[in-house]
Amino acid sequence: MTGRLIVVDGIEGGGKTTHLAFIRACLERDGRSVIATREPGGTALGEAVRELLLGHRGEGMAPSTETLLMFAARAEHLERVIRPALASGQWVLCDRFTDATYAYQGGGRGLSPDKIALLETWVQEGLQPDLTLLFDLPVALGLARAGRRGAADRFERERQAFFERARSVYLERARRWPERYRIVDASRAPAEVRSEVEALLAGWLERLDG
Amino acid sequence: MTGRLIVVDGIEGGGKTTHLAFIRACLERDGRSVIATREPGGTALGEAVRELLLGHRGEGMAPSTETLLMFAARAEHLERVIRPALASGQWVLCDRFTDATYAYQGGGRGLSPDKIALLETWVQEGLQPDLTLLFDLPVALGLARAGRRGAADRFERERQAFFERARSVYLERARRWPERYRIVDASRAPAEVRSEVEALLAGWLERLDG
Repeated sequence: MTGRLIVVDGIEGGGKTTHLAFIRACLERDGRSVIATREPGGTALGEAVRELLLGHRGEGMAPSTETLLMFAARAEHLERVIRPALASGQWVLCDRFTDATYAYQGGGRGLSPDKIALLETWVQEGLQPDLTLLFDLPVALGLARAGRRGAADRFERERQAFFERARSVYLERARRWPERYRIVDASRAPAEVRSEVEALLAGWLERLDG
Repeated sequence: MTGRLIVVDGIEGGGKTTHLAFIRACLERDGRSVIATREPGGTALGEAVRELLLGHRGEGMAPSTETLLMFAARAEHLERVIRPALASGQWVLCDRFTDATYAYQGGGRGLSPDKIALLETWVQEGLQPDLTLLFDLPVALGLARAGRRGAADRFERERQAFFERARSVYLERARRWPERYRIVDASRAPAEVRSEVEALLAGWLERLDG
């Protein structure tokens, strides 16, 4: 049996990375084998590309360059990690995936969604996450929370309007494909978020097995 | 008046990089302003990507990853260097360009030319070199010459059959678009190559101005 690809995504400060271990534990309950990974990254080469992308050098790069680097890291991740894991029946839990490219390079930087879709097809050849948990919260709250963490990376230094556009794209995508997205209210306290995530996952898994 | 993009390309050991200064001098004779650059590279980010691509770490990467990285560096190079130079009337002399992607990632690694063409359109939006000087020579001779240089990079370590496929793609492309390619017999001694390059350039420039 082939595995499933579960993605957690959303703007900064939503706590998705914090909740990753809990989500993994929920998925493992029924004996599933789960690997956790992240984008950009997930491979040695992908992590090197991540360094270029998030680098604090402050040089900036063209939105098209940024998008191609994201998909280069994704191609390597799919080839070396995600596809082999799915083929062997493992579940893959990934912190960010292509939704983030639509949100940040599309919504944030203004690259056309059609251009992103071309690369998505080029790289993924039809592969899509089985489920995306979108950690959604007001941008101001997310940024206030993210501000408590150390030095800001090249994305975290962007202004509020950039993240408002990114959030809109995430929500639009989640509403367009309700069968494979679940929106988590990430503005609440961690314990409440955990309860919601647990309930959403249980409901989704039940439909999947049913 | 807009500038022109002149590319020198070809397999290893053809001496194209050695002859770059001479080609530049030929182009500058009639008062043209010429900048010389290279791929992958040509920008700070592009040089960092070049390090990943040619890296001696020996990890390897998927052909699709390699191709996306090449085009990421190219997108940055076009945006930051090539397009602004051409727009300001400068001529751009570039050591390798998209022909190398067709030759190495296409011919060498087996990625389909259709997939490469999609990225070419995505990144270049119709921009093509005005002239490509293809430094052509038998693979065995090229490798013997290249072998005299220090440590081999990740491409130079490839076997002869890889370069035979790359050479075939270069020649095929040069023959398909004779108006914008000139084939230089790079198997000859440097002085003879210089004479041929000079004559080819003079003929091409005359047609251009005529």
